Amino acid sequence: MRYHKIPDEAIRRLPIYLRGLLLLSEQKQQSISSRNLAHFLGVNPWQIRKDFSYFGGFGTRGVGYDIKRLIKQIKKILKLDVVHKAALVGVGNLGSAVLAYPGFRVYGFDIAAAFDSNPKKIGRKIKNITIEDVSDLRTLKKRTIDLGIIAVPCDAAQQAGDALVKAGVKGILNFSPCYIAVPKKIKVITIDIAMDLARLPYYMPAR
Amino acid sequence: MRYHKIPDEAIRRLPIYLRGLLLLSEQKQQSISSRNLAHFLGVNPWQIRKDFSYFGGFGTRGVGYDIKRLIKQIKKILKLDVVHKAALVGVGNLGSAVLAYPGFRVYGFDIAAAFDSNPKKIGRKIKNITIEDVSDLRTLKKRTIDLGIIAVPCDAAQQAGDALVKAGVKGILNFSPCYIAVPKKIKVITIDIAMDLARLPYYMPAR
Repeated sequence: MRYHKIPDEAIRRLPIYLRGLLLLSEQKQQSISSRNLAHFLGVNPWQIRKDFSYFGGFGTRGVGYDIKRLIKQIKKILKLDVVHKAALVGVGNLGSAVLAYPGFRVYGFDIAAAFDSNPKKIGRKIKNITIEDVSDLRTLKKRTIDLGIIAVPCDAAQQAGDALVKAGVKGILNFSPCYIAVPKKIKVITIDIAMDLARLPYYMPAR
Repeated sequence: MRYHKIPDEAIRRLPIYLRGLLLLSEQKQQSISSRNLAHFLGVNPWQIRKDFSYFGGFGTRGVGYDIKRLIKQIKKILKLDVVHKAALVGVGNLGSAVLAYPGFRVYGFDIAAAFDSNPKKIGRKIKNITIEDVSDLRTLKKRTIDLGIIAVPCDAAQQAGDALVKAGVKGILNFSPCYIAVPKKIKVITIDIAMDLARLPYYMPAR
């Protein structure tokens, strides 16, 4: 089955729903209404219903959505139903946090390799991953690693991106606060860890 | 001026627009059309026009939006036109990355204090911030710090949240992959650094 017509905006929201559903599933909940799911996630119920309708909308009136089924479906749409191997570039503070973060596995990501340019770090082991020399990035092709995670400072980000693209990755998660130019067929998602904080003051009462 | 009717969904997008506009402003660009801004950010042009219309929509036909003016306006709406002091709880890998991250200042955030429970870390200095004992969190009230950033493991997250609420913070940015229960008037935004990666495979060509 293929889902051609889901707009980017809905694709952007699916991981948010997925995350909430996974949390609910951990709490052994079996079904939920769009209204309660919306409340749990802090989004609009109509938005959830609309987004789910793009791929069939499995809710049953009065019962709600089957959480496990919905998780499976969303994972399939997002192509998270297979394991994706990722390579991390940059094992500083943020990179180390990424390596240690338990949340990637939930979405089917396996951070299978880590690279750094600092000779002091190369050869060190973090969480069963031996840090490799960044000049060895070209080996990724052979290792079926198709995702890159960039956690280097701005001035090294483009170079890391170029090396990842050359090594055949299809998608890049960019944690550096800089724009990276890549060929059109490569998808880059840039994350600014400060950006979400920018929504907070709006909701805070005045001092 | 107050903006009462902006829906949460639009508020969620404003920081994304703001970030893009700040990047463009750094590149000395002065104006941009909603179409080009949409392309730059990877969102829908109609969405941008609709969102901007909530607060007046300052675009001029054929010229586009005045970038500096738009930045000022969005900052005002998001209440980012004043400096907000934040306290960080947890100075592990992720916490250290947060302290070192240059991006918070752009949005008017000043990480003014950092706390940890590890005696080896307490008293150490990172980026002019001396790490304090987490049991001293109650001093925040006197220091006009109204934001908390949680970067501790799951099992310590609720305790950190409770302490921050007790210390009078109005909003919390939660980097731990766990749900935190707080009183209704406190706004919590939980960030899952893995979640954005979950959007990538959808856009990647099949192997």
